[in-house]
Amino acid sequence: MAYTNNKQQTKQKRQTRTPRVPAAPKPKLKVIPLGGLHEIGKNITAFEYEDEIMIIDCGVAFPEDDMPGIDLVIPDFTYLVQNKDKILGIVLTHGHEDHIGSLPYFFREINVPVYGTRLTIGLVETKLKEHNLLNTVERINVNAGDTITLGKNFKVEFIRSTHSIADSVAIALTTPAGVVVHSGDFKVDFTPIQGEPIDLQRFAELGKKGVLLFMCESTNVELKGYTMSESNVGPIFRKIFDDSREQRIMVATFSSNIDRIQQIINCAAEHKRKVCIIGRSMSNVVTTAIELGYLKIDENMLIDVTELNKYTDRQLVIITTGSQGETMSALSRVASGDHRQVEIRPGDKVIISATPIPGNEKNVYRVINELLKKGADVIYDGLMDVHVSGHARQEEIKLLHALLKPKYVMPVHGEYKMLTRHRQLVTDMGMPKENVFVMANGDVLEINKQGGKILPQAVPSGQVFVDGLGVGDVGNIVLRDRKHLSQDGLMIVVVAMAKYSGTILSGPDIISRGFVYVRESEELMVEAREVVKEALYSLDGRNVSDWSYIKTLIKDTLRDFLWKKTKRSPMILPIITEIDM
Amino acid sequence: MAYTNNKQQTKQKRQTRTPRVPAAPKPKLKVIPLGGLHEIGKNITAFEYEDEIMIIDCGVAFPEDDMPGIDLVIPDFTYLVQNKDKILGIVLTHGHEDHIGSLPYFFREINVPVYGTRLTIGLVETKLKEHNLLNTVERINVNAGDTITLGKNFKVEFIRSTHSIADSVAIALTTPAGVVVHSGDFKVDFTPIQGEPIDLQRFAELGKKGVLLFMCESTNVELKGYTMSESNVGPIFRKIFDDSREQRIMVATFSSNIDRIQQIINCAAEHKRKVCIIGRSMSNVVTTAIELGYLKIDENMLIDVTELNKYTDRQLVIITTGSQGETMSALSRVASGDHRQVEIRPGDKVIISATPIPGNEKNVYRVINELLKKGADVIYDGLMDVHVSGHARQEEIKLLHALLKPKYVMPVHGEYKMLTRHRQLVTDMGMPKENVFVMANGDVLEINKQGGKILPQAVPSGQVFVDGLGVGDVGNIVLRDRKHLSQDGLMIVVVAMAKYSGTILSGPDIISRGFVYVRESEELMVEAREVVKEALYSLDGRNVSDWSYIKTLIKDTLRDFLWKKTKRSPMILPIITEIDM
Repeated sequence: MAYTNNKQQTKQKRQTRTPRVPAAPKPKLKVIPLGGLHEIGKNITAFEYEDEIMIIDCGVAFPEDDMPGIDLVIPDFTYLVQNKDKILGIVLTHGHEDHIGSLPYFFREINVPVYGTRLTIGLVETKLKEHNLLNTVERINVNAGDTITLGKNFKVEFIRSTHSIADSVAIALTTPAGVVVHSGDFKVDFTPIQGEPIDLQRFAELGKKGVLLFMCESTNVELKGYTMSESNVGPIFRKIFDDSREQRIMVATFSSNIDRIQQIINCAAEHKRKVCIIGRSMSNVVTTAIELGYLKIDENMLIDVTELNKYTDRQLVIITTGSQGETMSALSRVASGDHRQVEIRPGDKVIISATPIPGNEKNVYRVINELLKKGADVIYDGLMDVHVSGHARQEEIKLLHALLKPKYVMPVHGEYKMLTRHRQLVTDMGMPKENVFVMANGDVLEINKQGGKILPQAVPSGQVFVDGLGVGDVGNIVLRDRKHLSQDGLMIVVVAMAKYSGTILSGPDIISRGFVYVRESEELMVEAREVVKEALYSLDGRNVSDWSYIKTLIKDTLRDFLWKKTKRSPMILPIITEIDM
Repeated sequence: MAYTNNKQQTKQKRQTRTPRVPAAPKPKLKVIPLGGLHEIGKNITAFEYEDEIMIIDCGVAFPEDDMPGIDLVIPDFTYLVQNKDKILGIVLTHGHEDHIGSLPYFFREINVPVYGTRLTIGLVETKLKEHNLLNTVERINVNAGDTITLGKNFKVEFIRSTHSIADSVAIALTTPAGVVVHSGDFKVDFTPIQGEPIDLQRFAELGKKGVLLFMCESTNVELKGYTMSESNVGPIFRKIFDDSREQRIMVATFSSNIDRIQQIINCAAEHKRKVCIIGRSMSNVVTTAIELGYLKIDENMLIDVTELNKYTDRQLVIITTGSQGETMSALSRVASGDHRQVEIRPGDKVIISATPIPGNEKNVYRVINELLKKGADVIYDGLMDVHVSGHARQEEIKLLHALLKPKYVMPVHGEYKMLTRHRQLVTDMGMPKENVFVMANGDVLEINKQGGKILPQAVPSGQVFVDGLGVGDVGNIVLRDRKHLSQDGLMIVVVAMAKYSGTILSGPDIISRGFVYVRESEELMVEAREVVKEALYSLDGRNVSDWSYIKTLIKDTLRDFLWKKTKRSPMILPIITEIDM
């Protein structure tokens, strides 16, 4: 039982002494996960000690099927805005969108420095540039192994980690209440493509000294065993390149997976192929990664999309976005024949180096079907192992727990079912169930060495929708209307009435959208008009000029009629134009 | 190489001689897959020989994300209606919705007899009853092993098969052009829960005699190995029942999986638990299956949902629909606390005995999360093997190919990527690639022993949408409108104008739905109104009474304004009320 012998050693190699605190009853540290949709503790977490707050990560969630028209989902910053003056800074674990994507929206409200490793900050800067915020926000580069001090109460240590993006770190946060370790996103990769493996020794050392709370990600906690190393993908690619000497090769992967891209570039170099990058986010990331030295490529290997026709099939590799079947992505447009510069030809070899994230399956399959129909030879995850996950499975998660031996655990970064599975995992290791905190977003955990508890009162943590330029102007009522409109469409009834006499001057006219083919349902529309007309004329002589009464009458009459005739409930909008006569 | 030694033997055990045909150049058999969405050759297939047509299956597809408001997708019957007089009958392979669900819509247009095994016909009758068609449609019960004659050209043999519903069959169709074998949905289950295993000897015998074409399903063709037998699930259930003696148990599974339900009932009987069935389709199927003897249960074991409170937790098993997280299903309503009679209590054991069909993952996870939050103990596929598929994997598919050794193959029942994978599978077995026909829905394969080819001209095979009572009155334009409305909502501009003078009598007024929170975007709405007003008044004096010109002006003005301000494009509907003055 890893958790049964939890002694602390006093020896310390590094200089990370806990700050001195008075002996009197200590204040507690507050830990507040604030972002994510079904996932809990994913995009952003706030740590509050007395009058100071520091934040780890600030990412976006992606809209789901029941959020039509929404581009992004960002955390609700209400609590942070209310406590603006306490905030010391934001610390980032890595450069993925779900950890940095909300920064531009955060910085519109609150201006504090942001700390991260070089690649992470590089990607943040691209983002800030797009939002015209580059000159107003202070960025501070750190290296894995560094420790910084924030305010009086926080020491932040960046621990080298491994994930599907380079330069990712875990965080050890030393506070007067104790040490909190935040895993960030991680896998235990002993043979990463660049840099060194995750710093397990440091985790062990922290564990020896005593960890109060371990916040650990749960993405793959339902999966047994270990996630394979990123370097397992290289040989598979090499084999495909060997087998496809005459074919043009196109690879779709996550733009942020620089190590994957490096392995593709290495294969291309071995086969003397030029590399062409398509897709906006892929170009952005590759440019940043080359600039910062995270991606190594001979500069004359890289060609522009306009130069494609200068080379033969066997001289080319195209690396593209769209591995999730996103409708507007480069690969999607190539597959459907809508890409301006790249057209699929029979015999092209297309590798989808990713697995569909739950919810994206249908879109990915659609892209694969379209590519196959155009004669391409498509390799995807089910056929060959052209992808590995960036997230730890059960044995890796247990390894970190065994090294850190924290007093308390907060499983984060997963749906509720994953967090409860994570709790099962650590109680199986001997941790008492009451020492595991399964939170909801907005919940406040108050904790120190004497104990921890979730406060009865949560802070605001709803999701804020970004639609076009609008932030937060689309909410649940608007979404409900959108969903209603999309289910059965719309019927508008227009009547012009004289203001004083209540006489009908024109109409009722009926206009519908998204309801039925008007041309083929002419009879239904004529009948509908008649039914409304009858109801309106039944008022005649009664001199009704209470428009809201008339509107309700129109709505009820038409709704009943349509339900009887079609078993559908379109949105009905009665419009009365009042004429001044 | 299974396909390299394709000799035919003349010995025959059964009396299924091929009908005699003239020696002159023979007409060819036409094979036409007509139904399915991304899946090809799934819901319905027509076989046409000279002036006769017979049909195998007549099912529905389920709407996808980009078909808001649609209830069902049925095949386009145009070609069949045009050739109504040739049609001899419909033959069914099994009773799943995707194979029988379109029958009521078919029978509205065409009245021919329908043939199927007892359980299949029993389920069809429930369906016909709901649509008031029971008295008009002739049903004929057959047994596995039977051969029937349809018209001059077709002999139809029903071959015992195994699948996730009892009484499923494959079809051997003997025609003057040769023998076609249609696999239906199948797995090779050597230890089915009831009845005998799939009749492999008969497949072998048919193969020996010579099979022209094998139409084989492709659902699991991307998966290596064998699908486990249905009887593997029983011991897992037994273990869960043993481990949960004090808990109330609820199991969600497919209503049609009678063998699964039988195994749950057996466990319940062993533990002296009563069984309560909830969910409409589950009740329907269970009632039919008990009546026809496919489901064996002590009659006093079955209790009504109203009797639940008469029993303690340890005396109860609830079997429910909703294993796919369908919003309106019993399990979904139980999970969200909306079910009238069943409420989840902490400690309840809930087993989801199914895996999410691609596209349903998010909904299933939502239900699991909700159940866990209410304190239930939830077992789903990732945690224990509480489900097996009903579809053959690669080795089983190869087994049938090896037994039948057909001259030609048509992979069916799968997306394009699965059909091409299936082609790869049989070419790996030695079949020439040109003997494998990967079709699109509506394609016509013309075939006899001399060869086969896909005709250049396809027949109509689009999908027909069922929405409420409407069949086919919602098409692509309506769906496009629904999608547009759901993305950015709607703005209606109402103006009343004098018919003759073109004077504005009232308005412009703007009404929006699904666009923004009106209350929080008041300024935007006021500005929008001003912009439209300005545009309209700019016409003043020019005496414009061309309404369509004015409508376009309103649309363009408002669209440009909104895009600039919000980067959104709501649907804009200008409505001009013409007043007779």
